[in-house]
Amino acid sequence: MSGKLTDQEMAEKLATLTGWTPVEGRSAIHRTFTFKTFNQAFGFMTRVALKAEAMNHHPEWFNVYNRVEVTLSTHDAGGVTDKDITLAAFMDKAGGA
Amino acid sequence: MSGKLTDQEMAEKLATLTGWTPVEGRSAIHRTFTFKTFNQAFGFMTRVALKAEAMNHHPEWFNVYNRVEVTLSTHDAGGVTDKDITLAAFMDKAGGA
Repeated sequence: MSGKLTDQEMAEKLATLTGWTPVEGRSAIHRTFTFKTFNQAFGFMTRVALKAEAMNHHPEWFNVYNRVEVTLSTHDAGGVTDKDITLAAFMDKAGGA
Repeated sequence: MSGKLTDQEMAEKLATLTGWTPVEGRSAIHRTFTFKTFNQAFGFMTRVALKAEAMNHHPEWFNVYNRVEVTLSTHDAGGVTDKDITLAAFMDKAGGA
């Protein structure tokens, strides 16, 4: 269940998420979250960090002030897996989308 | 006191920090922090976030697993100011350097 998703599987799963797109030239997915303030952005990151730690599956992310850029991929599987979709869905909820 | 530092001032202040270097092609400073785990890396980020919020001066930062890449610059001043040096010194302490 943690194998790399096929293109077809990924397209189907992305359709269940909000605003996630495939990354060019790499098997990964990306979304930008924008909040009103740094406080809200970092609050979001903290909620996601606790989830990520519990899943032992961590994001690549960049933050500047109210913006959080997230890339998800499963290193061990060499691409996007169900773990990434699960974490992305959690982030959608945590980010208010 | 929040004006952009001159090259001479910046060189002097960077010498008081640990591992911070000027960013090529931009008036900003950069350091990479590496920890043992994501837990430690995010703990560090949380301590810095509280400080940054109190200073109303926020970092640009990228995290993947145990690594945190930080860039500091003062947008309003168009470059590196004493605020960046203060936050960098705090990060050095928080990061155990």
